[in-house]
Amino acid sequence: MLLHTIEEVREQVRKWKKEGLTVGLVPTMGALHDGHRSLIEKSVEKCDRTVVSVFVNPIQFCPGEDLDKYPRTLDEDCTLCDKIGADIVFAPSPKEMYGEGHILSNDFLTYVIPPYFYTDKLCGKSRVGHFDGVCTVVNKLFNIVQPDFAFFGKKDMQQLIILKKMVKDLNIPVQIISCPIVRNTEGLALSSRNKYLSEEGKKDALALSRLLLNIKVCYNKGIKDVRALAETAFSFLNEKHSLEYLEFRDGVTLEAKEVADDNTVVFVAAKVENVRLIDNIELK
Amino acid sequence: MLLHTIEEVREQVRKWKKEGLTVGLVPTMGALHDGHRSLIEKSVEKCDRTVVSVFVNPIQFCPGEDLDKYPRTLDEDCTLCDKIGADIVFAPSPKEMYGEGHILSNDFLTYVIPPYFYTDKLCGKSRVGHFDGVCTVVNKLFNIVQPDFAFFGKKDMQQLIILKKMVKDLNIPVQIISCPIVRNTEGLALSSRNKYLSEEGKKDALALSRLLLNIKVCYNKGIKDVRALAETAFSFLNEKHSLEYLEFRDGVTLEAKEVADDNTVVFVAAKVENVRLIDNIELK
Repeated sequence: MLLHTIEEVREQVRKWKKEGLTVGLVPTMGALHDGHRSLIEKSVEKCDRTVVSVFVNPIQFCPGEDLDKYPRTLDEDCTLCDKIGADIVFAPSPKEMYGEGHILSNDFLTYVIPPYFYTDKLCGKSRVGHFDGVCTVVNKLFNIVQPDFAFFGKKDMQQLIILKKMVKDLNIPVQIISCPIVRNTEGLALSSRNKYLSEEGKKDALALSRLLLNIKVCYNKGIKDVRALAETAFSFLNEKHSLEYLEFRDGVTLEAKEVADDNTVVFVAAKVENVRLIDNIELK
Repeated sequence: MLLHTIEEVREQVRKWKKEGLTVGLVPTMGALHDGHRSLIEKSVEKCDRTVVSVFVNPIQFCPGEDLDKYPRTLDEDCTLCDKIGADIVFAPSPKEMYGEGHILSNDFLTYVIPPYFYTDKLCGKSRVGHFDGVCTVVNKLFNIVQPDFAFFGKKDMQQLIILKKMVKDLNIPVQIISCPIVRNTEGLALSSRNKYLSEEGKKDALALSRLLLNIKVCYNKGIKDVRALAETAFSFLNEKHSLEYLEFRDGVTLEAKEVADDNTVVFVAAKVENVRLIDNIELK
C-alpha cells in the first residue's frame, strides 16, 4: 500500500496497534537495492507489520551535494517492497514533511542535533550538518510511525552509531536493529550512489572493501598497532582513489583507537570517479 | 504513586495504554503552587490517568542561574498531587535522566534545538541555551510517558509557543493544552521564584501585571500603535524595577508587531530585588 500523507500512515498504524501487532520501520531514501532488501526482509521476518519510508530528505544534503540528481525510482521501489511483503510504502513529499516556505533552515525548524563529538569526525567533517538532518528526519519518522523496531544498515556505520545515541539520549521508545553490510559478489558494499560509477569505476571501488578485509586479516594475525594496520592499506590505493579518511574508532563511542581491539571499527571514505564512497569493517 | 525510574513509569503507562486509557502529562520542576495545581486539575479532568513529572532540569539553567538554590519541596508536591488526583509523580534523579559523567554538554548529549528565530528574543536573549534544555527534557519526557495530552501554563508563553512549534516540526504524537496564567488576589502571576521575594518585593512585582492589564485596557479603547501602548507602561515602573524587555509579538510566530492586533501577546520581564520575573497578556 503506497501512502503519501502522515495522517494516512498514522491511521493505519493506529489500527495495527489496537490489534496488538508489532510494527517495523525501514527508513530509506529509495533507489532500493539488495542492501535495503535485507533490511526489509529482516523487518518482515521480525515484525507483524512493516513500513518502508522512501524520502529523499533535503535537509541531510549539504550545499553542492547530489540532492537533485539523487536517483528516484519509486515505482520499482514499490514493486520490490510488495514482493518482500512490506505492508506500507510511505513516500511523503518534502512539503508533507516540512511544510511550505523557508522553514528548512534552523531559523525556522526545530532540529534534533546529535553530539558534536560524534559528528565532527569521519563523514561529519566533510558533510557539515548532514547528521543533524538525518537525526531530525528519523526522529520525525519515529514520531509518525511509532515503530517497535527500526532497521538500519551497518554500511552507514557512523549514522547507525549516532542514531543509537539519539534513541538513548532522548529515551525514544524504539529498538534499533543493526543489519550487516550487503556486498556484491566481488565485495563492493551496495549503495544507491554506486549507480554513478562506470564499470571501470566499480572495479576501482573494490579497493575499499579489499583494504578493509586485509586490515582485518592482519589484525587477526596479531597486528594491533593502528599505524601499522593503516600502512597495509596503501598498497590497495592508486591515483584513481582520492582517500578522504581511514580511521580506527570505537564502535559505540567513536573514540579514536591507538591500539586496535575487538570493539574497533575501521572506517574508510574515498572518491572514485568523483563519487564519494564509504565502507567499514568491524574487527571483532 | 511516587516513581523515580524511567522503567517504572513506562511499565505503568504500558498497562494503562493496554486498557485503552488516555494519559495526561504535567511537566514541572516541582515547588508546586496554584498555577501547577490548575494544570494538574485540568489533566485529571480531561484524561483517564495523570502523570506529574517533578524534575529540576540542569540543562535548562544557564551559568550563574539559580540551579542550586531552586526550591525543592518533593514531599509537599506529592501530597498536593495526591490530593488533586494525579496517579503518578515521576521524580527522576539527574543521573536517571542524563546518565553519569560530563554528558550534559552538546559534545556528548543529543539535543532538541528549537529554531533560532524563536529563541533569539525575549527570555532567550538573556538565557542562552535555556530553551534548548527545555525542548530536550520535554522531548525526553514525552518519549518516556507517551502522553496523549501535555499541559503547560501560559505564564511561560515563549516556552509554550516553542514547545508547540517543536511538536509540530517533529510530528510528536501529543496534544499540547495551554492553560491560563494563575494570579494571586492582587494580580501577581504565580511562580516558584516568587519565594525569593520579600513581602515588599511582592508589592513591587505587581507593577508587571498592572502595566500589562493597563496596556490591554488601552488597546480595547482603540490604541493600536505599539509604541504608544508601550509608553503607557513606564508610569508603573520605578527604581525598584529593572526592566529587561517589554515587547509586542505574535502569539504563534513570535514576529514583532508594529500595530497591535488580536493575535498580539505583550511580554514583559523585569528584575525586582534581583529576582527575574516574567509575565504576559494576550490582547484578544
